[in-house]
Amino acid sequence: MEKNGSIVPAEFPELKNETFLRAAQGEQTEYTPVWCMRQAGRYLPEFRETRAAQDFFATCRSPEMCCELTLQPLWRFPLDAAIIFSDILVVPQWTLMSYMIEGGGSNTMAKAKAWLYRHPEASHRLLTLLTDVIVDYLVGQVAAGAQGGTEEGRGLKVAPMLQALQLFESHAGHLGPEQFAEFALPSIRSIAKRVKNKLLEDALPAVPMIIFAKDAHYALEDLAQSGYEVVGLDWTICPQDARQRTGKDITLQGNLDPCALYAPKEKIGELVKKMLEGFGSQRYIANLGHGLYPDICPEHVGAFVDAVHIHSRHLNKCS
Amino acid sequence: MEKNGSIVPAEFPELKNETFLRAAQGEQTEYTPVWCMRQAGRYLPEFRETRAAQDFFATCRSPEMCCELTLQPLWRFPLDAAIIFSDILVVPQWTLMSYMIEGGGSNTMAKAKAWLYRHPEASHRLLTLLTDVIVDYLVGQVAAGAQGGTEEGRGLKVAPMLQALQLFESHAGHLGPEQFAEFALPSIRSIAKRVKNKLLEDALPAVPMIIFAKDAHYALEDLAQSGYEVVGLDWTICPQDARQRTGKDITLQGNLDPCALYAPKEKIGELVKKMLEGFGSQRYIANLGHGLYPDICPEHVGAFVDAVHIHSRHLNKCS
Repeated sequence: MEKNGSIVPAEFPELKNETFLRAAQGEQTEYTPVWCMRQAGRYLPEFRETRAAQDFFATCRSPEMCCELTLQPLWRFPLDAAIIFSDILVVPQWTLMSYMIEGGGSNTMAKAKAWLYRHPEASHRLLTLLTDVIVDYLVGQVAAGAQGGTEEGRGLKVAPMLQALQLFESHAGHLGPEQFAEFALPSIRSIAKRVKNKLLEDALPAVPMIIFAKDAHYALEDLAQSGYEVVGLDWTICPQDARQRTGKDITLQGNLDPCALYAPKEKIGELVKKMLEGFGSQRYIANLGHGLYPDICPEHVGAFVDAVHIHSRHLNKCS
Repeated sequence: MEKNGSIVPAEFPELKNETFLRAAQGEQTEYTPVWCMRQAGRYLPEFRETRAAQDFFATCRSPEMCCELTLQPLWRFPLDAAIIFSDILVVPQWTLMSYMIEGGGSNTMAKAKAWLYRHPEASHRLLTLLTDVIVDYLVGQVAAGAQGGTEEGRGLKVAPMLQALQLFESHAGHLGPEQFAEFALPSIRSIAKRVKNKLLEDALPAVPMIIFAKDAHYALEDLAQSGYEVVGLDWTICPQDARQRTGKDITLQGNLDPCALYAPKEKIGELVKKMLEGFGSQRYIANLGHGLYPDICPEHVGAFVDAVHIHSRHLNKCS
């Protein structure tokens, strides 16, 4: 972001670190790129301070604030991707329907699921409507992100700002294999296909897309074939099993248990090493299996990021 | 229960329906037995009425009340097993540790999991202590249950009252494959082994044991080898996959999505048929993939039970 307040600089600086994008597109990388879900989050004291200054929606509406929050974790750690701070940049999809019907959070999502069982056709119509909105929203984000942004003062250049899209399905664990196949998978497939077509049509850059369906262990094979470059995994999936089930032509992302960052730093290093050996250091983006918790010590996040870089370089050298 | 108030009759009536036990022990059955987790529960108006009469712990301490609540679902539906109403008959195990550390429920179990990562040795010691308590408790239940009980007035005879034990691990979804293997599986194995040895030692009847570890999809193979006669499955597991992964020498139990009971009755019939075709009608105990929800219509529970009996008899005839 330029200090004059404009987020649309006249020219884009060259992209300095494309390791994340290369891995997402299945190209060889020197080391394994790493980022953390919720890396711009409450575990950072500077995040809490910036956020405390005004209310949540005011923050979301301020490009300067969003840029500040987005970059905070990158000033601390050598992360390979910035996540734009926004309430629904990562759009909950089926998820959205469940909140609409439940009228809020729920442990069992019983009302939303009852609706799927009782009114399958109306459910499909609602999901189709939501899919339309999401496709427009995602294409809009790419269009906005392609305008880029730079941050000159503190040694970082980030442009174009939007390089990849991640779609969350947070409630796959509430659906079983059949409801997921009937209600979630068609929308997931359709979003990838329509976003890609629309980007091409509008002469916008093609961006790699990531699908992260939490607790969808039963659908890994289908997700690997759903039109996304990257499949994100939660921590209940064994890396070796994931590789075997999804094949060689997909990039995997994940999946350290966020709670593992409560462990001593040496233990974090061991767990990262094991995870890298399981996934392999290529066609792989290291991440957590879910978002960072607010009480995780920033230093331990740093230990995680460093361990990924160190061990993956070592693995690449040995292989 | 005899109407004079004694729950220890002089002689035990003959067991009328042993289909559930036969299936648990891997013997051929004429039809597939069925019961529902939380079948003695708030979805029954008569349950709500009985429970409203006094507070929860008073109910748990009254053998007459417990017997009444246990039998209520059997007066309505031709279920193949009675579940004794009790707060911790089905003992949460690792689960127990998580509540002790969290000091209550939690969405992420982050505190308990942090403890496992930070203090693995202390965690093992606590789990060993809990395992000791659970083994004594379960053996005590078999000893008490073996005294039997009859219910003469309403056409039912239930004796011996305790015929099987089910162990719950409700939080396997919070653990990943590694923490489950390190912290949960050893206790699960040890409980089965020690309960069986103790029953033999005390000249008590051998009872089949069921392990139900919710969201432990990653550990199915291990659970099938953990010393239990039956492995219970949640609704995220595909029946055919479960059969393939656990082999032929184990009885499977489950796994209809409880929310499927919100569907129209014809749809419930179709889903039950599909489930039975997936599991096969032998070495199988039909159940839900989790407990009944309080707002499920009792008639739909009846439709589920009937569909299991009808379709499994049909399958047995055809094969």
